[in-house]
Amino acid sequence: MKAMVLEKVGKVEENPLKYKDVDIKKPEGFEILIKNLACGVCHSNLHMIEGDWVQYGLPGKSNIIPGHEIIGRVEELGDNVTDLKKGDIVGLQPLYSACGKCEYCLSGREHLCPYGKWTGETVDGGYAEYMIADSRYVNKVPSNIDPVNAPLFCPGVTAYTAVKKAELSPDKTVYIVGIGGVGHIALQIAKLYGSRVVAVTTSKNHEDLAYKMGADDVVIMDRNYENADMLAKTADAAIIFAPADAAIKNSIKFVKDGGVVVQGVRGNQGEFDFTRELKIKGSKIGTRQDMNEVLKLAADGKIKVESKTYKLEEANEALKALKHGEVNGRAVLKMY
Amino acid sequence: MKAMVLEKVGKVEENPLKYKDVDIKKPEGFEILIKNLACGVCHSNLHMIEGDWVQYGLPGKSNIIPGHEIIGRVEELGDNVTDLKKGDIVGLQPLYSACGKCEYCLSGREHLCPYGKWTGETVDGGYAEYMIADSRYVNKVPSNIDPVNAPLFCPGVTAYTAVKKAELSPDKTVYIVGIGGVGHIALQIAKLYGSRVVAVTTSKNHEDLAYKMGADDVVIMDRNYENADMLAKTADAAIIFAPADAAIKNSIKFVKDGGVVVQGVRGNQGEFDFTRELKIKGSKIGTRQDMNEVLKLAADGKIKVESKTYKLEEANEALKALKHGEVNGRAVLKMY
Amino acid sequence: MKAMVLEKVGKVEENPLKYKDVDIKKPEGFEILIKNLACGVCHSNLHMIEGDWVQYGLPGKSNIIPGHEIIGRVEELGDNVTDLKKGDIVGLQPLYSACGKCEYCLSGREHLCPYGKWTGETVDGGYAEYMIADSRYVNKVPSNIDPVNAPLFCPGVTAYTAVKKAELSPDKTVYIVGIGGVGHIALQIAKLYGSRVVAVTTSKNHEDLAYKMGADDVVIMDRNYENADMLAKTADAAIIFAPADAAIKNSIKFVKDGGVVVQGVRGNQGEFDFTRELKIKGSKIGTRQDMNEVLKLAADGKIKVESKTYKLEEANEALKALKHGEVNGRAVLKMY
Amino acid sequence: MKAMVLEKVGKVEENPLKYKDVDIKKPEGFEILIKNLACGVCHSNLHMIEGDWVQYGLPGKSNIIPGHEIIGRVEELGDNVTDLKKGDIVGLQPLYSACGKCEYCLSGREHLCPYGKWTGETVDGGYAEYMIADSRYVNKVPSNIDPVNAPLFCPGVTAYTAVKKAELSPDKTVYIVGIGGVGHIALQIAKLYGSRVVAVTTSKNHEDLAYKMGADDVVIMDRNYENADMLAKTADAAIIFAPADAAIKNSIKFVKDGGVVVQGVRGNQGEFDFTRELKIKGSKIGTRQDMNEVLKLAADGKIKVESKTYKLEEANEALKALKHGEVNGRAVLKMY
Repeated sequence: MKAMVLEKVGKVEENPLKYKDVDIKKPEGFEILIKNLACGVCHSNLHMIEGDWVQYGLPGKSNIIPGHEIIGRVEELGDNVTDLKKGDIVGLQPLYSACGKCEYCLSGREHLCPYGKWTGETVDGGYAEYMIADSRYVNKVPSNIDPVNAPLFCPGVTAYTAVKKAELSPDKTVYIVGIGGVGHIALQIAKLYGSRVVAVTTSKNHEDLAYKMGADDVVIMDRNYENADMLAKTADAAIIFAPADAAIKNSIKFVKDGGVVVQGVRGNQGEFDFTRELKIKGSKIGTRQDMNEVLKLAADGKIKVESKTYKLEEANEALKALKHGEVNGRAVLKMY
Repeated sequence: MKAMVLEKVGKVEENPLKYKDVDIKKPEGFEILIKNLACGVCHSNLHMIEGDWVQYGLPGKSNIIPGHEIIGRVEELGDNVTDLKKGDIVGLQPLYSACGKCEYCLSGREHLCPYGKWTGETVDGGYAEYMIADSRYVNKVPSNIDPVNAPLFCPGVTAYTAVKKAELSPDKTVYIVGIGGVGHIALQIAKLYGSRVVAVTTSKNHEDLAYKMGADDVVIMDRNYENADMLAKTADAAIIFAPADAAIKNSIKFVKDGGVVVQGVRGNQGEFDFTRELKIKGSKIGTRQDMNEVLKLAADGKIKVESKTYKLEEANEALKALKHGEVNGRAVLKMY
Repeated sequence: MKAMVLEKVGKVEENPLKYKDVDIKKPEGFEILIKNLACGVCHSNLHMIEGDWVQYGLPGKSNIIPGHEIIGRVEELGDNVTDLKKGDIVGLQPLYSACGKCEYCLSGREHLCPYGKWTGETVDGGYAEYMIADSRYVNKVPSNIDPVNAPLFCPGVTAYTAVKKAELSPDKTVYIVGIGGVGHIALQIAKLYGSRVVAVTTSKNHEDLAYKMGADDVVIMDRNYENADMLAKTADAAIIFAPADAAIKNSIKFVKDGGVVVQGVRGNQGEFDFTRELKIKGSKIGTRQDMNEVLKLAADGKIKVESKTYKLEEANEALKALKHGEVNGRAVLKMY
Repeated sequence: MKAMVLEKVGKVEENPLKYKDVDIKKPEGFEILIKNLACGVCHSNLHMIEGDWVQYGLPGKSNIIPGHEIIGRVEELGDNVTDLKKGDIVGLQPLYSACGKCEYCLSGREHLCPYGKWTGETVDGGYAEYMIADSRYVNKVPSNIDPVNAPLFCPGVTAYTAVKKAELSPDKTVYIVGIGGVGHIALQIAKLYGSRVVAVTTSKNHEDLAYKMGADDVVIMDRNYENADMLAKTADAAIIFAPADAAIKNSIKFVKDGGVVVQGVRGNQGEFDFTRELKIKGSKIGTRQDMNEVLKLAADGKIKVESKTYKLEEANEALKALKHGEVNGRAVLKMY
């Protein structure tokens, strides 16, 4: 099969992923072989590829195929698989599998399992024509969801669990900070909770997308949030998807005493004034149950992914566009 | 009457509070006149006196009597007061009064009222023989509580609401970081929740007090928390009462994924790794209801204040002792 | 002034309220005099009038003016009132006033205060041209809300707090059982939470109203819920506003294991199978804060009251229409 | 091996379990063979044996070995088992296994799985020398827990999850109603939460046990709860383990407005006054995570089982003693 392989970490311009032939593996035990139909291009793929996460031990193999938000078709089943069949459409999240026995796995928080494997980071992912998955950790995809919605499996569930933590209700006002791949889905989900939803972005380009996704209002911030004070203590909650120190520091100011701040994307450090009674919650992806709920909302037409498609062999172009802020919504490698 | 008056902010060594005669005021409307029996000496009194909080507009008057944790006896009643009588023993928190009409007051969160008055900061407090209080915002003190337990009204309730936010239960392990005026009460309260309670302190001197207050274990940290990594991800919750950046930054590391960090004292900034799924909660004092619950626990003998008493005119000595870390538990001005 | 006075409990057909002249009272202390603009006619008014609640000590006076959901205009102020002025538009809930000092009042649950006074039940209510209110317990009404929306102050807040307790979210399905004065507002509020909302009613007449209020689906139950099994374990939550034993018993069956049942109106006994892991919550009216949230939703156009208006002197006709199920939405005495 | 087999449902006096030889099965896949060391005798075993649950389809086989709270030693492993080894000490709950894929399994609520198998009810249980278990659903037992504590696996976890739902804290008062096999463990757990714990029982014989388990107070109720009114609205929470209509109906009265009632054992119907704002929660056993928490508390010496031991072949005597209220704490079949 063809795959885009990360052979060496480095700037994507100088060390692009290599488009090459790779052997298709045979599924064993609970594994399944999947024909990938679409795979989203995540900002965290870029971080891993460019070596920002070497300190976390990522990527976890010398040659790895990135890509962790995938919809594909089951092609072949390992011997232990009984609840899937050839032709089923399934999806994979960043969490490839978990141990099933630790306190997190046993309490509905498998995404925090310390023994988890990570799609496209510690095992091969979706920038390829085929991949192996653990049948116990994939989700069945409702038939009316087009595979181009593969990003439901990362920004979709990331947005969903972040919004869930924000304690929204119809009488509340929430700010969604950062209207990119995750934020544009979070806007739609926050609207479902009946809250007043305000998009906060440093990019004038995101204004139209924000309104299209249902924002009640859009506020354009200066690059360094110098005009942040005008929003001080005006929100019940802020949900941050912008990976910048200024975004975090200032978003906390937006929130009223007693309110909630959710930090929804990894890769950031924050600094904040501990003198106020706020709740600050970190949030990262979700569980298979969260994912099923996201798929239900998508199947019911309540959320959708705004995407720009690329071919598999164009993955480097997609990564570069993402790096330079040129993607509206989410870039997706479409393979059907 | 005699009072210790703050005439000018400045270092307590050079600009001590002045011991002087002050007129006793007459209570009007819902006000009452109180004969102060005891008043705790809080670290935040020191901050205000030394001018650390001028940026927050504190103190709120040119000449002010500090002191915000008081037990006293009702001496005289304003015309509207019907639910208290002369001789009743009452206590005052830092929250002198609130508006009674805002969203915080109407939802059981009056301590966040933006229109609150603050005892000893915006109105005269307890470093005096008498003071005026708002009868609607004092708490009746059960008869078996000795007035020297006045610190129940600040560190007591501060510890109580911070522990409440930590989501403790008998299967959990909690770290109490900082075993001073607040921390030594928090240890006792955390034990009541059945959790394993570990005291974390940079002061070897606090070890005995911590065990006496019921700690299951005591860990001595280096001054700059250089040995903090040995505790990484070993606690379900950490509650921080140490006003130091190193304390905050490292206490967050102690907590397991999915766990809770409570920052229990004001006056600090923090920095933290937003990449983990944690809940970080600011906490400040509490409501009259919280205070009633604290008084019930104290009346039932479940919590007590470890205190060192001073005379009213020795307030400057108490403040200096506090400044130099020489007080075990809480300094209290005893006036009976 | 003119008022509709309950002189003796009894069937409304034989002992109608008497339309008569009554003295206007002068407001004292924190009281205000209100010119009533509209007052809703509640099913519980009927219960009290007909003597169903004599066992609860209601009505609390020998001659009483019923009516507990009122919007009116401030005409005169008691001496202590500072936060209202003549001409302000305010509303009153069934909770006329509370003690302000008990554990319920201090924790944002004043509607459970054991010392509360009850509008139109223990003090005179809104079936009159004027009434006295406690200025501390009224809510200011936003200027864009027409007084005919007076029922926001009883069914509005009753629906709101019941829906709040149902733990709704966009992935859930909720059944609203009983589409009368309360249920038709609850439908609108439940929709705001993004859930799938199904109206369950024994009255074919309520079908149109339910769809108009936003129901995703309407299910007509047999009078005695004989066809209830077809809905067994199909809802995440059921909220019951139908005061019938069959409604309660069967609504509990609708809910999936782990789900929530909210009983939203008083006056019923229930029987249920305690062998299932469900949460069953009683709910009654709400607080001033709940009321402010309801008014905000109404001012934003998110909820509205469907009403049929009567003149003050037609209160008996309104009560009889209500008794015979002939009111769609809510009957309101309109006095402007 | 020897086993006590239920060949036909009926009164235990006339149709006792038959002590007979049964083949030992060979474990396959994820199964393990266990040498049973101890098995508790549950009141629900008696219900099933006597035919009370035939309407629920139990027992699920024509000849079944009862017993669902077991500690045993691993003797043999199926081919897929990798995380256990011969000689390990493990325990089994009533939940033999669950599907692992439904919304309950994926959200940390596997005990509500509609596809669950039930130990000793739908598959053979612990009234035998050996049994088959699913290795994925057993819990490892800490080495300092004596196997006679097998009841931790049913009344232990039942008590634990019921107490968890009661929203206890150190300022609260909780009533434990019924001081039998489950109640005597619940008393100990409720004490760990710091609450005031009152035992309520109709049996004077349970008084000593209740105090021994840590009750702050014991109240003896008349057989039909005729003196229940003296406790009206005096508790923050009541947890009911007494399978009698009078117990349920009256325990609800004990609870203050806004409080919590937990119904902790199955097999009962209740009736209650829906006019009050209470939370009523059904509770049944728990998950593997709950079970691990129970085992941790037991290993730490915080809870223990009061038991009376019988030999395997004396199971009928144990059942009859239980039926006649002659067991203090829990009857256990001891096989070591």
